[in-house]
Amino acid sequence: MSGNTFGRLFTVTTFGESHGAALGAIVDGCPPGIELSEADLQGDLDRRRPGTSRHTTQRREPDQVRILSGVFEGRTTGTSIGLLIENTDQRSKDYSSIKDIFRPAHADYTYHHKYGERDYRGGGRSSARETAMRVAAGAIARKFLATRGVIIRGYMSQLGPIKIPFKRWEGVNDNPFFSPDPDIVPELEAYMDQLRRDQDSVGARITVVADNVPVGLGEPVFDRLDADLAHAMMGINAVKGVEIGDGFDVVSQRGSEHRDEMTPEGFLSNHAGGVLGGLSSGQPLVVHLALKPTSSITTPGRSIDVHGNGVDVITKGRHDPCVGIRATPIAEAMMALTLADHLMRHRGQNADVQVSTPVLGMKE
Amino acid sequence: MSGNTFGRLFTVTTFGESHGAALGAIVDGCPPGIELSEADLQGDLDRRRPGTSRHTTQRREPDQVRILSGVFEGRTTGTSIGLLIENTDQRSKDYSSIKDIFRPAHADYTYHHKYGERDYRGGGRSSARETAMRVAAGAIARKFLATRGVIIRGYMSQLGPIKIPFKRWEGVNDNPFFSPDPDIVPELEAYMDQLRRDQDSVGARITVVADNVPVGLGEPVFDRLDADLAHAMMGINAVKGVEIGDGFDVVSQRGSEHRDEMTPEGFLSNHAGGVLGGLSSGQPLVVHLALKPTSSITTPGRSIDVHGNGVDVITKGRHDPCVGIRATPIAEAMMALTLADHLMRHRGQNADVQVSTPVLGMKE
Amino acid sequence: MSGNTFGRLFTVTTFGESHGAALGAIVDGCPPGIELSEADLQGDLDRRRPGTSRHTTQRREPDQVRILSGVFEGRTTGTSIGLLIENTDQRSKDYSSIKDIFRPAHADYTYHHKYGERDYRGGGRSSARETAMRVAAGAIARKFLATRGVIIRGYMSQLGPIKIPFKRWEGVNDNPFFSPDPDIVPELEAYMDQLRRDQDSVGARITVVADNVPVGLGEPVFDRLDADLAHAMMGINAVKGVEIGDGFDVVSQRGSEHRDEMTPEGFLSNHAGGVLGGLSSGQPLVVHLALKPTSSITTPGRSIDVHGNGVDVITKGRHDPCVGIRATPIAEAMMALTLADHLMRHRGQNADVQVSTPVLGMKE
Amino acid sequence: MSGNTFGRLFTVTTFGESHGAALGAIVDGCPPGIELSEADLQGDLDRRRPGTSRHTTQRREPDQVRILSGVFEGRTTGTSIGLLIENTDQRSKDYSSIKDIFRPAHADYTYHHKYGERDYRGGGRSSARETAMRVAAGAIARKFLATRGVIIRGYMSQLGPIKIPFKRWEGVNDNPFFSPDPDIVPELEAYMDQLRRDQDSVGARITVVADNVPVGLGEPVFDRLDADLAHAMMGINAVKGVEIGDGFDVVSQRGSEHRDEMTPEGFLSNHAGGVLGGLSSGQPLVVHLALKPTSSITTPGRSIDVHGNGVDVITKGRHDPCVGIRATPIAEAMMALTLADHLMRHRGQNADVQVSTPVLGMKE
Repeated sequence: MSGNTFGRLFTVTTFGESHGAALGAIVDGCPPGIELSEADLQGDLDRRRPGTSRHTTQRREPDQVRILSGVFEGRTTGTSIGLLIENTDQRSKDYSSIKDIFRPAHADYTYHHKYGERDYRGGGRSSARETAMRVAAGAIARKFLATRGVIIRGYMSQLGPIKIPFKRWEGVNDNPFFSPDPDIVPELEAYMDQLRRDQDSVGARITVVADNVPVGLGEPVFDRLDADLAHAMMGINAVKGVEIGDGFDVVSQRGSEHRDEMTPEGFLSNHAGGVLGGLSSGQPLVVHLALKPTSSITTPGRSIDVHGNGVDVITKGRHDPCVGIRATPIAEAMMALTLADHLMRHRGQNADVQVSTPVLGMKE
Repeated sequence: MSGNTFGRLFTVTTFGESHGAALGAIVDGCPPGIELSEADLQGDLDRRRPGTSRHTTQRREPDQVRILSGVFEGRTTGTSIGLLIENTDQRSKDYSSIKDIFRPAHADYTYHHKYGERDYRGGGRSSARETAMRVAAGAIARKFLATRGVIIRGYMSQLGPIKIPFKRWEGVNDNPFFSPDPDIVPELEAYMDQLRRDQDSVGARITVVADNVPVGLGEPVFDRLDADLAHAMMGINAVKGVEIGDGFDVVSQRGSEHRDEMTPEGFLSNHAGGVLGGLSSGQPLVVHLALKPTSSITTPGRSIDVHGNGVDVITKGRHDPCVGIRATPIAEAMMALTLADHLMRHRGQNADVQVSTPVLGMKE
Repeated sequence: MSGNTFGRLFTVTTFGESHGAALGAIVDGCPPGIELSEADLQGDLDRRRPGTSRHTTQRREPDQVRILSGVFEGRTTGTSIGLLIENTDQRSKDYSSIKDIFRPAHADYTYHHKYGERDYRGGGRSSARETAMRVAAGAIARKFLATRGVIIRGYMSQLGPIKIPFKRWEGVNDNPFFSPDPDIVPELEAYMDQLRRDQDSVGARITVVADNVPVGLGEPVFDRLDADLAHAMMGINAVKGVEIGDGFDVVSQRGSEHRDEMTPEGFLSNHAGGVLGGLSSGQPLVVHLALKPTSSITTPGRSIDVHGNGVDVITKGRHDPCVGIRATPIAEAMMALTLADHLMRHRGQNADVQVSTPVLGMKE
Repeated sequence: MSGNTFGRLFTVTTFGESHGAALGAIVDGCPPGIELSEADLQGDLDRRRPGTSRHTTQRREPDQVRILSGVFEGRTTGTSIGLLIENTDQRSKDYSSIKDIFRPAHADYTYHHKYGERDYRGGGRSSARETAMRVAAGAIARKFLATRGVIIRGYMSQLGPIKIPFKRWEGVNDNPFFSPDPDIVPELEAYMDQLRRDQDSVGARITVVADNVPVGLGEPVFDRLDADLAHAMMGINAVKGVEIGDGFDVVSQRGSEHRDEMTPEGFLSNHAGGVLGGLSSGQPLVVHLALKPTSSITTPGRSIDVHGNGVDVITKGRHDPCVGIRATPIAEAMMALTLADHLMRHRGQNADVQVSTPVLGMKE
């Protein structure tokens, strides 16, 4: 209710500040009998981890996760799963100078007005460091979804002005940008190097796809699958736009062009991005998101302090010049959590539904 | 939990099928002491009502709403408010021919797989007719928000290929398109007339703006105000994309360009669209949404029946050639419900916060 | 969140005041494919209906319920079910004299302080008239539970000082007290007649039993089945105590006496009342509740008015001299709603659990 | 939703098994600006801690709690508060012999049927060890409530057959039984010593009282304050009965006797236990609970194993002969959590209510 919990049946609740003692989460509602170990979580955490290339923040956090409960003899028991990551590389002194200053386009101003009290070190609770726990929890959701064959993958589809064509899934995790086109990586690296010299930051576009999603996930009327995906993705730090399937391109499409016709062999197209009437159609679920350029740049900016005086601000500390670079595993995690939750909700809602109609395969 | 409830503290739960006996809703959590009458709801319902111009469905529904509880001597009492609209113009026979057919790009296919049972008449629960109750409930939220000075207004910003520039709020409700530019209305009408001759449909883009939003609404981490707005908007029938502020334009923006700097007099820009760190900043809250072209067109399309046989489908019945035309009051209602809920959540969470820092005004 | 919704997956949300236009409810989360008609609801409503004997209030309400949505061709569709009962026999004038007076031991005083605004006619929202919708919704839950063989029955186990022994289920519904002993009915009638002459009221004890409950319903740690039953029962107007199984008798029991031992043939006793560790054990689920004497009596009582002045109050209107008499169908309904919800939660939580251990039958 | 979360606005979610690595909790929704340190929590934890007298289990756990987030410079920030207690004195080997056996009257049987997977060591998640986190979270709720003057205190009112009269609050925490009568303590000690010699266990009755509760807490219709208290108390391990105020005594009371009359100076009695119409009346809130005798006794009992074979069971390990002895701080914690949640809900629901009517003081 205070916004630190995601999901209704398969839920994750998180805690932790950027420069606090630790980050933690409780995953509740994971079914029993799922094989689970800390190694299952560490893989995705390492993909999100800072400091692995020169294009991300140089804060060094091993992000070593512990599972404290809910797993017995290698399998989930159905009880709540406690997760913990201790913070190790805080440099809180970097922030004492901005204690009373609202960095432009940060949460400083709004948190101050909402709470009065504020842990200003590294953005406190508003820092993207919190997303480590989303990734850890998302890895549990992925393990559960994998038992149903659901696969979730993501990639960067645009970096600043550079559009990145989808070529193949292979190799996406082998470059620091999650680029699905290995040939474009040198261009991306050159762009980032120039950006750092400019002391500036830039936005990005991420695409996430889920395959083998069962038909019928989602709840009409308000909690449609696409609505809940939008909630999940817009809740990631820096995201300013979310699209399902063709997204904003539908504005100028005609119905005869947009509608995905069906034949006995399957759908003939996937403009809808895998959702019809708010429910999954069995086609690949396709979501795009837009991430804004981080505002933590060393170019001076005008702002005010808590007393209302004008100040010029340079944001020190260690920051990502493009927060979109590390966003792919986060977006995958949020899609996994959304699908795991809706899979459980679907089961909870429809006790004994047996529908024999075969599900249409996707034709590409 | 089955998706028929919106909100956490200020909630609306709806029922009703397109061709059922009635539509209804329960609004729960509205504070006591708000002046409220059926006339307050009827105004917005009339703006959404079908059949008021030749550019919308010709189904004639007076959409006369009754308040059945929760209001005593003209003021809310704090108890749950029951709302009812009886359906009067069902022509269910139009639909018997498609009882066993999945209309392409409709919810028929997914509802069939989710539930087994399905009220196929006019799309049943998946029909946009359900949004009448959202508008009625949203009108109550608006009345509550108005006591705090919050104003919510929307307009069509694009119809198919025609971009509609924002000129002024005056007159937006005086044309069937909610166009903020009266001069462009003849072009829109000509476009729609040709579209009807083509037996086709088209998409649209809607923009909704809230002014005078208090600072600090929204809950970190997952239930940010922007995340909940995305959920609200993507949950409207036919919506495929949601943007806050600059939306997808942020992908190619630089941090030095995007960040909204502040001076003692106020913000210098509003690229963020009124949200910082997931909380309202006091600037105008700006949301854009993309609505797909309706798939209910009379141009034949390929599909299958419940037995898996291929069929050609012509969607009869009375339909909107551009569902976006009637979407403006619906999107306004969803923004009102989201803000009312977060206003209550904010109060519920922060018992006695007294912050004296003056809130920055918006500079345009 | 405002307390007008019961349940998490199988939910009911109600509205309506004692002397308002109508009572209504939305049942959400009922699985599709359940046979349902208005007649299914009317039976339980008639059991709760006022004015059927001289021992209850003489207000005459037919309590005719309409199903407005969620049912198509005689079966539930999985969408939300709208229910409506129009009020017909309001005599609101009876109440104008107590507009500014707090009747002793009524909700008048607390509602006034909570809301400021108050529909004083007949207690408004605090009236037990609201329980009609619980009974209607409970009847839907019973239909669903019946498809799993679960049977819920209740009886009066004590009226004032008169303890009523359980003799047999047959005939419980054939006397106005829901007495499981027909021979004691004349004594109960004589007691009530004297009570009416005394212009007084009295308390009662009700017992509700569910048979054939599947093993494992309930969620540790907080939402145990017994905890949720306690919530359900204590939420009925006038209830001041709830017991599971042996209830308060366990205080003086020893472990060797209380523990229900098991053999391969089944449990040897049921002191626990069908719950172990918060989860259903497969034994009969046994709940007792204590209802206070209504405070609406014509014997004058001391109180104050809204201005703080002392007054003497005689509660006119038409009231039940023992609210416990009509409480049996309400308590049954609340148990049905609790079990239906937990059955759905159990399914939602435990995706594919297959446990082959046979469930122990109850030995009595 | 899986039952590991308590509350709606002021919430606690817990994890941890009896013999797992750690216990933990996330408290969400605590308002900002409350002074809070680990010492505030340790006091109540020490009152609940095992091994402090010969009358409780001899397991030695320091129950040292760490606050990992949500507190900055000694005050809450409004963000989620992470709590952690590492387990130190597990002797899991004690339990390997009962791996495949259902101890009579334990949760073994029901957990096995619900989940299939089960951490059998010390009862795993079903162990009362989990209540340590409730006490820690409850201590935070108490700190918040104390800022409004609300005081919560409890005592043992019956141990087995020995009724304990309330004499005074002073000294309640100075004896191992939380007895409000110091003179009866020797009798209680003698009873417990004999019980241990009998290798048996016994039940107890606990009473909890809150003073200075604001008027109007609680939400009609389902989430009344008394209903939520019943949920909170019945959710404590071993509780089988809950009473508000006069509880089951109301069954034989008359209305003229039960109703608490009011004068301009205050209420004349408190049979209702501080709740009218489900809302707090401003009088002392009085709750009684019945705890069953623990079933972990060394007297052999008949049971079955997971294969359905009959077995004789002696429960080894270290257990409480009367779980009621340590229940007082747990019950206080649950009342604190319930009141904190309803205080926040009340604020969230009733935006600007200003009622000037003076609240009646309690006359004792």
